[in-house]
Amino acid sequence: MIRIVFLGFGNVGYHLCNTLHNSNKVSVCQIFNRSVIFLPSEVASIPFTTKLSEIVEADIYIIAIPDDAIASFSENLPFQNKLVVHTSGSVPMNILAEKNRKGVFYPLQTFSKNRAVSFSDVPICIETEQPSDETLLTTLGEVLSEKVITVASEVRLKLHLAAVFVNNFTNHMYTIGSAILEENQLPFNLLQPLIAETARKIETLSPSEAQTGPAKRKDVKTIEKHLHLLKDSPYKTVYEEITNAIQEKQNTSHGKKL
Amino acid sequence: MIRIVFLGFGNVGYHLCNTLHNSNKVSVCQIFNRSVIFLPSEVASIPFTTKLSEIVEADIYIIAIPDDAIASFSENLPFQNKLVVHTSGSVPMNILAEKNRKGVFYPLQTFSKNRAVSFSDVPICIETEQPSDETLLTTLGEVLSEKVITVASEVRLKLHLAAVFVNNFTNHMYTIGSAILEENQLPFNLLQPLIAETARKIETLSPSEAQTGPAKRKDVKTIEKHLHLLKDSPYKTVYEEITNAIQEKQNTSHGKKL
Repeated sequence: MIRIVFLGFGNVGYHLCNTLHNSNKVSVCQIFNRSVIFLPSEVASIPFTTKLSEIVEADIYIIAIPDDAIASFSENLPFQNKLVVHTSGSVPMNILAEKNRKGVFYPLQTFSKNRAVSFSDVPICIETEQPSDETLLTTLGEVLSEKVITVASEVRLKLHLAAVFVNNFTNHMYTIGSAILEENQLPFNLLQPLIAETARKIETLSPSEAQTGPAKRKDVKTIEKHLHLLKDSPYKTVYEEITNAIQEKQNTSHGKKL
Repeated sequence: MIRIVFLGFGNVGYHLCNTLHNSNKVSVCQIFNRSVIFLPSEVASIPFTTKLSEIVEADIYIIAIPDDAIASFSENLPFQNKLVVHTSGSVPMNILAEKNRKGVFYPLQTFSKNRAVSFSDVPICIETEQPSDETLLTTLGEVLSEKVITVASEVRLKLHLAAVFVNNFTNHMYTIGSAILEENQLPFNLLQPLIAETARKIETLSPSEAQTGPAKRKDVKTIEKHLHLLKDSPYKTVYEEITNAIQEKQNTSHGKKL
């Protein structure tokens, strides 16, 4: 039984906690949060505190707070020689305070408050300062997912960057699509089958193989029609930038360096 | 029984033909293509011709050829007063030659050669010059899909523009994510659960609600780390452009005009 304490309880903390709490291989001993928060009923039975001095004994302490706050928070923890991990994609492991054993437990997924997440196929990216802690974090990761990988901080940052493109930026493409439909009193759900198929396609085709559309075809007439529609629009520069990027990609026979 | 002739046989033609050919409400009488092509076994029993003069009698002629060729091709058809439709999102109905009854049959979906498509939830956007043809095209659309809508040419172009954002541009985000992983000898499938969840999320949340990430949070530190990684990369301008666009969106309380 791995004993866990959650330090902070945002979206990532909540989803991890809720899933781990349902496992018989893990005991979530406590949730700490700086301020009093409402604990959803699924996790309401877990002891809660707002006092650093009341944090209980555990095998792993999971910090799930905003990136900027991780360093100083870890410095203020009133214990030492414990395994303390953060859950951030873009923060190096070494930002954690020296007095505890450092680690990272980063689930490569997007989390929103009102949406259940299944972790079973989510890559759990772990990193530990001490080799002996790798086994423990791997065991914890395997409670959640079939895919636990060891990733160094600098590679994790690149994974996080790739995630920003495929998640945050893709979602912004959905936002623009939605705005264009809304302007024309058309419901967004008209685009949902296309969005779903776009995502499913790359399960069997590489993104290069799956690319279609006027930019890839260099269909200047259609691009001009679109730019005419967008002539007073804030979305015009995004359209031009990505159209150029797709065309440049077509012009290079090999992949380009990051 | 609706009699159909396919004029041209690219990705859209093939997928439409294959699905309609399996329906007992439709008879695909013939496939015309300018040059001899290999017909996949599913449709190999359909009569094929490369001669315009051999095109047979039908209720609907479906032109499925590149956008640029539609106008002159429709002019060269050796018959008149028939219902002739094209399948393009961005070409106006009126580009079709006057001698036949004009229409459009545009499935709002992405098609690739080696990927089966289920049409059942795909919006079929129809348009007809003559009101009486609307019933026939609607009936045909309903053979494929539960969602058949009448859309005028100028609105269809906007739908097509929105589709470019959520499909073509999203796929380019996947391409960049894939390139970043490849540079680091990481397999692309690490991103697939995230891509799938990103698409699924907007089935229950609006894209604005689903938006997360450093741009939305105005997390300058993380954005700087990403830009540092991208300093010699062709993806840097796309990163900056979309990051700015997300931040501008955050700054406006209302949606922006297209």
